[in-house]
Amino acid sequence: MKNSQQNRTYCLVTSCPDRVGIIAAVSQFIAQRGGSFEESNHHSDHDGQRFFMRNVIDANSLSISLAQFREQFAPLAQQLEMKWHIRDSDTPQNVVIFASHASHCLSDLLYRWHSGELNCDIPCVISNHENLRSIVEWYNIPFHYVPVDKGDKAPAFAKMNQIVTANSADTIVLARYMQIIPAELCRDYAGRLINIHHSFLPSFIGANPYQKAFDRGVKLIGATSHYVTEELDEGPIIEQDVIRVSHSCNKDDLVRLGRDVERAVLSKALRYHLQDRVMIQGNKTIVF
Amino acid sequence: MKNSQQNRTYCLVTSCPDRVGIIAAVSQFIAQRGGSFEESNHHSDHDGQRFFMRNVIDANSLSISLAQFREQFAPLAQQLEMKWHIRDSDTPQNVVIFASHASHCLSDLLYRWHSGELNCDIPCVISNHENLRSIVEWYNIPFHYVPVDKGDKAPAFAKMNQIVTANSADTIVLARYMQIIPAELCRDYAGRLINIHHSFLPSFIGANPYQKAFDRGVKLIGATSHYVTEELDEGPIIEQDVIRVSHSCNKDDLVRLGRDVERAVLSKALRYHLQDRVMIQGNKTIVF
Amino acid sequence: MKNSQQNRTYCLVTSCPDRVGIIAAVSQFIAQRGGSFEESNHHSDHDGQRFFMRNVIDANSLSISLAQFREQFAPLAQQLEMKWHIRDSDTPQNVVIFASHASHCLSDLLYRWHSGELNCDIPCVISNHENLRSIVEWYNIPFHYVPVDKGDKAPAFAKMNQIVTANSADTIVLARYMQIIPAELCRDYAGRLINIHHSFLPSFIGANPYQKAFDRGVKLIGATSHYVTEELDEGPIIEQDVIRVSHSCNKDDLVRLGRDVERAVLSKALRYHLQDRVMIQGNKTIVF
Amino acid sequence: MKNSQQNRTYCLVTSCPDRVGIIAAVSQFIAQRGGSFEESNHHSDHDGQRFFMRNVIDANSLSISLAQFREQFAPLAQQLEMKWHIRDSDTPQNVVIFASHASHCLSDLLYRWHSGELNCDIPCVISNHENLRSIVEWYNIPFHYVPVDKGDKAPAFAKMNQIVTANSADTIVLARYMQIIPAELCRDYAGRLINIHHSFLPSFIGANPYQKAFDRGVKLIGATSHYVTEELDEGPIIEQDVIRVSHSCNKDDLVRLGRDVERAVLSKALRYHLQDRVMIQGNKTIVF
Repeated sequence: MKNSQQNRTYCLVTSCPDRVGIIAAVSQFIAQRGGSFEESNHHSDHDGQRFFMRNVIDANSLSISLAQFREQFAPLAQQLEMKWHIRDSDTPQNVVIFASHASHCLSDLLYRWHSGELNCDIPCVISNHENLRSIVEWYNIPFHYVPVDKGDKAPAFAKMNQIVTANSADTIVLARYMQIIPAELCRDYAGRLINIHHSFLPSFIGANPYQKAFDRGVKLIGATSHYVTEELDEGPIIEQDVIRVSHSCNKDDLVRLGRDVERAVLSKALRYHLQDRVMIQGNKTIVF
Repeated sequence: MKNSQQNRTYCLVTSCPDRVGIIAAVSQFIAQRGGSFEESNHHSDHDGQRFFMRNVIDANSLSISLAQFREQFAPLAQQLEMKWHIRDSDTPQNVVIFASHASHCLSDLLYRWHSGELNCDIPCVISNHENLRSIVEWYNIPFHYVPVDKGDKAPAFAKMNQIVTANSADTIVLARYMQIIPAELCRDYAGRLINIHHSFLPSFIGANPYQKAFDRGVKLIGATSHYVTEELDEGPIIEQDVIRVSHSCNKDDLVRLGRDVERAVLSKALRYHLQDRVMIQGNKTIVF
Repeated sequence: MKNSQQNRTYCLVTSCPDRVGIIAAVSQFIAQRGGSFEESNHHSDHDGQRFFMRNVIDANSLSISLAQFREQFAPLAQQLEMKWHIRDSDTPQNVVIFASHASHCLSDLLYRWHSGELNCDIPCVISNHENLRSIVEWYNIPFHYVPVDKGDKAPAFAKMNQIVTANSADTIVLARYMQIIPAELCRDYAGRLINIHHSFLPSFIGANPYQKAFDRGVKLIGATSHYVTEELDEGPIIEQDVIRVSHSCNKDDLVRLGRDVERAVLSKALRYHLQDRVMIQGNKTIVF
Repeated sequence: MKNSQQNRTYCLVTSCPDRVGIIAAVSQFIAQRGGSFEESNHHSDHDGQRFFMRNVIDANSLSISLAQFREQFAPLAQQLEMKWHIRDSDTPQNVVIFASHASHCLSDLLYRWHSGELNCDIPCVISNHENLRSIVEWYNIPFHYVPVDKGDKAPAFAKMNQIVTANSADTIVLARYMQIIPAELCRDYAGRLINIHHSFLPSFIGANPYQKAFDRGVKLIGATSHYVTEELDEGPIIEQDVIRVSHSCNKDDLVRLGRDVERAVLSKALRYHLQDRVMIQGNKTIVF
């Protein structure tokens, strides 16, 4: 639904206390520097306290550099008490993917990245199993095998942290990585650590959601992509979807059908994230 | 999806321990009496212990009467240890509807009944509010106003029981009737008391599901029709569906959008129920 | 998806040749008069030639009256070569509905209007059949029976034109009105005459689309709401949706299932239209 | 929706003139040989002339071999004037895939095959471009490059025919193979040659359907999988689906979004075909 950006663009994302004149001030700032909008999105939260804005600007239309933009915009942003950032589409984010044994989400992300659907670099994939090495390396992406010792997970996560840091990861994606992420990593990557949970949250939190869905006899199963917080499966939801099932499906059918939903939902969530469409407010998201 | 039945049909519904030869025995019994099938559905539960079957027979093709069918089929059913019933499409069920203040589900059911989509009689509607009397009476259906005293609900339910009995209700539909149903009525109408809950169960059980959905920031909201049991919102699910929402929706938008899902889901569930498509197994349903 | 507007608002809708500074100029104009935005939508067409904007302004936040707004905005609009209008949410449009024999779309529109989902007045319903008089009058809406003589349709349409004019219709809705509309009325109500066609256009243009869909063996059937132009079923599409069907459906099942899609699609299209979300560009629509 | 088959099964598919007693005769035949049903589906066409049946039998429950089944069933089939076949799940079909430059459908089919979702062998892939060789060979599947000379396509198709024959292809899948298939191959593989068309047929037959969809301003785009006949895009439809688009999508967005629908629809159609769920009647399909 969200349209593609083919030209070089700058994406300016802001949030600030709501008041009269924010759009006017920002759009005038941009217009005075020749900026032409490719897309512009606004949202006031429902109690009218905070205002969110995303502006995609044709980079070539601007009379100033990105550095100059940052410098000149800062005083206005300060005056409006803004939280803001601006991103150059020609500087893709580094996305490190954590995977486990299951291949469907990882394969789908790699395929879409290779097809140009995901504007990012993937410096490496980390997994606690070896079985996906071959497909990752087919894409010429380094694969790091970091097994997790059930008795002492700390060394594995230390190792993973080191790889993440060495690769300057902007965003981490858990592509059905089945380990609970340490609180510290959750905090360090708040709003930049994306998970796919194989249920329609808040139904079936935790382990074995397909078994739970089968046992409850639901008529639709789903998947949820969310930012990871320290509370398991409770972080801000980015995207969800469902698929119809029936009494003729056994648990393995749910798993099979669910795979298609999981990979569709995760890839959409990541795409929105990479396009700076997702803003977090409290425990909810705005997805422009 | 389930096709319409325009001719007079008998619907034979059976469940029994699974073994070789059930379809053969039953279909031969019917064929020997000239019976022609309009539709035939089978299901073995997933541990292979129990077999479920629904056969819709062209009534005019049979060489015997319904009474004769029942008499002659009984020994075979006993031999196969069957639970079974057969229903004549020309003898529609009596469906009593309980409503409260909200009109959308009730209006939809009445409209569909009037259009011939629901093969049933509606001997009356019972409500604890007066506001829907006019639309009910426009359909020439008696309307009973039975207010519920919060301090002592027993008299109201006694009165409702009496009306239900007097109208020989086969099935009761709770069309957003917001009162908790007494355990005794749940038991008396087990498998014949249908509710619509305004969430995608098992998410958001109990009161104010739209507020809860808004607070959690889900990206889809849903509705669930289920048979009522003594445990609130825990009965066997008949049908569910969802609709997409976004950050731009406030709680009132969820309520408005949800109404369309609720009425679609409830009317489908009732239609399946009236066509004897729904069989209960444990706390789950088979919907042929 | 489109959120509700509960306060008094002014909706300013503009289109003009694309250039740098349009958002800045318009938002500054509004901010200088104290205007607070409830919603703001933008679109540049794909060859970058034309810019479309919709601004919903909190009426109470503005320091000037609607008349003053119109007067003061005119010079800016002229300078930007804009086509524009501004509408007060407290001045609902007059919507005249044309119906025929089928009740489902009409009943649904009346129900939603009565529920407050459609911000409009319905001064009357016109039909070439008498059968829907009772339900229309239940809503206290005048019903005009205008039969159409197959040999000479002109007198009927003259009569209908007269009723439309007498009721100051802003918009006309064809709620499964099965007559071809005279070219003159199409032109007079260009962009304000909404039809529901019972297929997923451009499939199955013209008569009997369900029969055609059945004959082709499609696995989904649909409905399309569009603005009426002189070319049958070729006008700008506002909204479409589909529903799954199967080999077990006969043509009557398609008709029954299709009714739900038709009424959902038509009511959404009308709601978008009444909220000034729909802008026409060539033979396509922008739906904010 | 269609459930997985994990055990060895025989799938018996029949069609014959409708009459009383077909189910009885066939199910008795199977029961007498100890056969236990995993699934059983029936359909009478809408004018009651022809009866279609699919029975999935637990192979281990049968007291006779597959060869004996064929021999013993033949007289009954003849008596009922049946067209029939029975397939052993342990003898997967040979599926040859034709691809062109686009990778999405081919990659998806290979991935699903590798994951065990498609019960078939893929003896080779044939393409008129070299670019997909690497991914095909990653799966250890032979890749045949057969370029097509626009001036004289006959030699290429002769070569492809030879490869198809050499690989004993049971079924051919056109995974976005963009060449028109010779009439002779259409006839030889009638009901076994599956195409994916990138529109919701019968809309936008022929070339450039996404451009046509963009130009028409539709609000949903779709994909259709069908058996290929000599008439372009007119063969029996197996599966269709759609995805929502908006005015903000340009043609490239439609192409990108459409890819997801195409691969989902094609993989479902092939899965149904491989499970013998699809029966052709005239120019339509029954999909059990």
